[in-house]
Amino acid sequence: MANRRQTLRELGIQIGKFKAGERNSITDVPGVKVGHKTLTYDLSDGRAIRTGVTAILPHSGNLFQEKIIGSSYVINGFGKTIGFVQLQELGMIESPIMLTNTLSVPAVAEGTIQFLLKENQDIGNSTGTVNVIVGECNDGYLNDIRGLHVKGEHAIDAIKTASIQVEQGCVGAGTGMSCLGFKGGVGTSSRKLIVDGHHYTLGALVVSNFGTKDDLPSRFNNSIAIEEELEDMPDGSIMIVLATDAPLSERQLHRLAKRASFGLARTGSYAAHGSGDIVIAFSTAHKISHYPTGITNSFSFIVEDGPLISNFFQMAVEVVEESIWNSLCTATTTIGQNQHIRYEFDYNFFR
Amino acid sequence: MANRRQTLRELGIQIGKFKAGERNSITDVPGVKVGHKTLTYDLSDGRAIRTGVTAILPHSGNLFQEKIIGSSYVINGFGKTIGFVQLQELGMIESPIMLTNTLSVPAVAEGTIQFLLKENQDIGNSTGTVNVIVGECNDGYLNDIRGLHVKGEHAIDAIKTASIQVEQGCVGAGTGMSCLGFKGGVGTSSRKLIVDGHHYTLGALVVSNFGTKDDLPSRFNNSIAIEEELEDMPDGSIMIVLATDAPLSERQLHRLAKRASFGLARTGSYAAHGSGDIVIAFSTAHKISHYPTGITNSFSFIVEDGPLISNFFQMAVEVVEESIWNSLCTATTTIGQNQHIRYEFDYNFFR
Amino acid sequence: MANRRQTLRELGIQIGKFKAGERNSITDVPGVKVGHKTLTYDLSDGRAIRTGVTAILPHSGNLFQEKIIGSSYVINGFGKTIGFVQLQELGMIESPIMLTNTLSVPAVAEGTIQFLLKENQDIGNSTGTVNVIVGECNDGYLNDIRGLHVKGEHAIDAIKTASIQVEQGCVGAGTGMSCLGFKGGVGTSSRKLIVDGHHYTLGALVVSNFGTKDDLPSRFNNSIAIEEELEDMPDGSIMIVLATDAPLSERQLHRLAKRASFGLARTGSYAAHGSGDIVIAFSTAHKISHYPTGITNSFSFIVEDGPLISNFFQMAVEVVEESIWNSLCTATTTIGQNQHIRYEFDYNFFR
Amino acid sequence: MANRRQTLRELGIQIGKFKAGERNSITDVPGVKVGHKTLTYDLSDGRAIRTGVTAILPHSGNLFQEKIIGSSYVINGFGKTIGFVQLQELGMIESPIMLTNTLSVPAVAEGTIQFLLKENQDIGNSTGTVNVIVGECNDGYLNDIRGLHVKGEHAIDAIKTASIQVEQGCVGAGTGMSCLGFKGGVGTSSRKLIVDGHHYTLGALVVSNFGTKDDLPSRFNNSIAIEEELEDMPDGSIMIVLATDAPLSERQLHRLAKRASFGLARTGSYAAHGSGDIVIAFSTAHKISHYPTGITNSFSFIVEDGPLISNFFQMAVEVVEESIWNSLCTATTTIGQNQHIRYEFDYNFFR
Repeated sequence: MANRRQTLRELGIQIGKFKAGERNSITDVPGVKVGHKTLTYDLSDGRAIRTGVTAILPHSGNLFQEKIIGSSYVINGFGKTIGFVQLQELGMIESPIMLTNTLSVPAVAEGTIQFLLKENQDIGNSTGTVNVIVGECNDGYLNDIRGLHVKGEHAIDAIKTASIQVEQGCVGAGTGMSCLGFKGGVGTSSRKLIVDGHHYTLGALVVSNFGTKDDLPSRFNNSIAIEEELEDMPDGSIMIVLATDAPLSERQLHRLAKRASFGLARTGSYAAHGSGDIVIAFSTAHKISHYPTGITNSFSFIVEDGPLISNFFQMAVEVVEESIWNSLCTATTTIGQNQHIRYEFDYNFFR
Repeated sequence: MANRRQTLRELGIQIGKFKAGERNSITDVPGVKVGHKTLTYDLSDGRAIRTGVTAILPHSGNLFQEKIIGSSYVINGFGKTIGFVQLQELGMIESPIMLTNTLSVPAVAEGTIQFLLKENQDIGNSTGTVNVIVGECNDGYLNDIRGLHVKGEHAIDAIKTASIQVEQGCVGAGTGMSCLGFKGGVGTSSRKLIVDGHHYTLGALVVSNFGTKDDLPSRFNNSIAIEEELEDMPDGSIMIVLATDAPLSERQLHRLAKRASFGLARTGSYAAHGSGDIVIAFSTAHKISHYPTGITNSFSFIVEDGPLISNFFQMAVEVVEESIWNSLCTATTTIGQNQHIRYEFDYNFFR
Repeated sequence: MANRRQTLRELGIQIGKFKAGERNSITDVPGVKVGHKTLTYDLSDGRAIRTGVTAILPHSGNLFQEKIIGSSYVINGFGKTIGFVQLQELGMIESPIMLTNTLSVPAVAEGTIQFLLKENQDIGNSTGTVNVIVGECNDGYLNDIRGLHVKGEHAIDAIKTASIQVEQGCVGAGTGMSCLGFKGGVGTSSRKLIVDGHHYTLGALVVSNFGTKDDLPSRFNNSIAIEEELEDMPDGSIMIVLATDAPLSERQLHRLAKRASFGLARTGSYAAHGSGDIVIAFSTAHKISHYPTGITNSFSFIVEDGPLISNFFQMAVEVVEESIWNSLCTATTTIGQNQHIRYEFDYNFFR
Repeated sequence: MANRRQTLRELGIQIGKFKAGERNSITDVPGVKVGHKTLTYDLSDGRAIRTGVTAILPHSGNLFQEKIIGSSYVINGFGKTIGFVQLQELGMIESPIMLTNTLSVPAVAEGTIQFLLKENQDIGNSTGTVNVIVGECNDGYLNDIRGLHVKGEHAIDAIKTASIQVEQGCVGAGTGMSCLGFKGGVGTSSRKLIVDGHHYTLGALVVSNFGTKDDLPSRFNNSIAIEEELEDMPDGSIMIVLATDAPLSERQLHRLAKRASFGLARTGSYAAHGSGDIVIAFSTAHKISHYPTGITNSFSFIVEDGPLISNFFQMAVEVVEESIWNSLCTATTTIGQNQHIRYEFDYNFFR
């Protein structure tokens, strides 16, 4: 496939000290699926559609009826992500996590609501409403973002096609994104940990859309001449989703989400003013019924003692960094709106 | 007009010690306008549309080009309000503040974006994107909320019809709301303060949708028999918007917004679990250009010394309490979805 | 005893709809104890010591070794409370909760640390350090606060004398406090709830030091002439401690703590600028070992569905309001520093 | 001097793209001074005092009477820093910023209060109280932390000896600290920016006490054999203070403080569970009088448009990273409590 280049590992580079999961993907967390809807058309007048939707399903059941524990962290809030007010109040996720371009957040939210209303006849009828989560980055450099080309049905398409095979690079919400001066997009990675016979997996999926070539960290050979002028990039962003099957509470997931900024920092980001850098984290370890049967719910959570919880923090740093590099390594040169070009990442940077 | 009953003051009751503005309305703050789009139709099968949109315009100019200082406070985050991530990061509001029903937040956001894209050809083109703010309450008891009857154009209608005359009760976003067991809706109130020859105004507008008759405070005569069964009310809510022309910083506005809960508490609320109780506060005193010309912006802010800033806090408590009573006093008996009835508030409660 | 007047209930007034516990005290929560150290001496030159320390012990065991779940909420942060950074990060309390005057926070913290070091030879040796929590109000109107008369040993005294009998009014940290223009101090109250055969108790203890006579709510007969000039009261405050044996998570306790402001609002407060209004909440339902034995901890938490969690919210509102009235009703006229006088609350206000 | 080795720059290594200030120190920000009180004694029974106090004075005037704008950010809240509740509420700093060991926070707070009471006869008398800020790290590996050897007078000593010459390494609060498996301590760095003829400086001072050798970033040659056993390090920490003369608001300073974590991440930290990683940021551009004369204060703040504010963010990342390396590079091998040894950082790591 044109979009398929090589991941960082396929280039022979490993990040960190923990082992990757089988697919080195967020879908190594059992039950997690990812779906993309990619929109690429050329319109008249130089306008071009280079955008899409990515859906992350925390489990394959009915998310509204069987909620999961989640949290969020705003690294830099120049962003339009929705659903966080309730997520922070209740510590629960009850919808797919949707990613798209900035101005298409309402369309994707509407489509996701329609999907959930159809699946749950009780919502807004015999029970309350539903809180959907939609994140975004601004792909307006390559995409005709003002055209509002994403429709509700595209969100539903992304949800319905979700699987454990995660395509990376210029797909779904990553189709039109730019990162560190190159073509960005979707990237993913995972780590696993075995403690006392328990197997835990932690994965990340990012949509990378931040930074300029100047920001690339100096540990890589920076000798490639930067010839073209760097465009001013208003409203860059990165959306980061962390998933784990380890039993972490919403407070622990918030702590985990904060560590995403450490992985981000290692790729050269400093969270520029206009970059909406936002993290969502969830655990699939517990399912919380919308219709509880008793007066208490039972949970077990990882003990918060030194090395164990810290291992998860380190894994979060590793998967975020590697996901970002993967988004760069797999994305391909893209010509878009107004003949704007983003070149694919030059692997010589790693030599 | 059928909807027009009497405000609390017309009933002879005053709240607090500060004087109300000329209209006792949020539009007493110079420049602030409010528009409603009310949707009431009867559908087949007992379904009924009882919903709408309310738009609050902080000033009459171009809000994206001339932003204002704002903040928010989440009393209880069981709500789906959007736009808060960026509002808290940057302390600025750059769109009308829109209110509607819970499931219509995406439609209203989309319509508001379309309005702003048309008004600003630079958005998503030569400059970044725009952050819209949409708040909500769940009117599903009286309204066919699953029907998603609010469309983007209705949001634009609400914006375009904004004026300084604020209709209260069963209008706009308040059309289908319930409060303290009675018909709720839109309410507003204002206070003014003269300090050293400076005239300041502070106003509130609420959409009230919380509580049961049991919650009504005991200082009013509670002897009216409560005969009908109280329905379980999932996802009640109150949206509170505070406006002032006093020069308050985003931090000071956050402090002001917190005081809204004190006014709310005095009407009997305890911020029930399912009640999304959310406050937005803004000051019109400074306009911040989207295209700054220098390297600094100049501001003057109210000194944060004892009595002065505290006066604003007290005024906030007063306008929120009175706005809630006004929403109850002006709303009229409404029959909606599935022949559900909410009776208008009984003025005997004040005797 | 000179300090003992009547509680609100002894005056025949009940707040709310839930039943009080046996002692109508925070110590109705099994295991919770309260100790006071009261310092009252007259010095030369008109200076007078009217201050003290109050210690709240969540359980009778070793709090560092057996931590409990806790949270906090800052209503208005004009305050010097310590220990909140770690409390919010970890959601655990590992020391007695100490209350004193503003400038004596360091002395009380030092004394509490000494107590804990003696009790735990591992702290700062084979294990980490300990996080102590100390709250405060400014009693400088009646007390020679600049004299720093509270010493570490007084904190230890308060801890050691803790019992289930809670003296109210002018004792411990409440000795020199003023509230709503009258003598304030320590107040407490409790509520109980039986659900499905489970008995739960929720209690509050406050140190009240806020407001002026003008703030008293109008539902009470306000006809008593206010003759003397009201002094400007910089740095008023209220410290509120909520305790329950219901299994609430740290997030749920944070939600509970927020409801304290609703009880406070009903006594007339609007959280004035200079009032440090701060809430600490804890649950005794789980004990978390400092030396965990497995890799997970097990918890059960109250289901977060409509009426049940909301009952706890309402109980929190009720106990905070009643605790404040109790602090006023039980405190006695006090002459202090510079012959300043605070008169005891006039019971005619309730008639 | 024994403690004086070489800074990172003296070793020929530069971090980032902005130029350092004259002294490459936080005191390059005009008016800022730093004082240390170092305590090193050997006691009987193998106990050793290796601790101290560091004071950062934002300006040379009376800080209580002329407050400055400040903010804070908690990277990881396993820490006992005090003063943050009021700092976040009011956005102002009114005392020196004090750093010491974890269990000596109360002693340093008490000494600082005594200093401020003496300097300000109005505190606790004709005006309110004062909010002191004290941060800490746990030096218990090298220092007899249980001995509580820091006294209030040592805090006063640190304040009184403050100057623009900042000694680094094993001094003041850094005396007993460990970092990345080596001897840590105090480090500082600065950057300057000229915009439209305005000269701005941003500086950092850190007390480094986090991490193990395993965490050192791989970009440096990691081939040096790690022979000794790594001790478990409970309660590591880093205290980071950022100072600037650029006119940043409290909200902007909070954003700046968040970027400190990006500099920290680049030194290998992942903010381990037990590491209290805490940032304080202030601007000296405005002084806010304790006794305001009008009803508003005037401010000018840096425009929050893309590149300019982002430059400050980048500078913050650079000074934090360089300050940490400086703390390592300048600290010297230290033998302390129980003959524990921390070796000085091996410069071969940079080769």
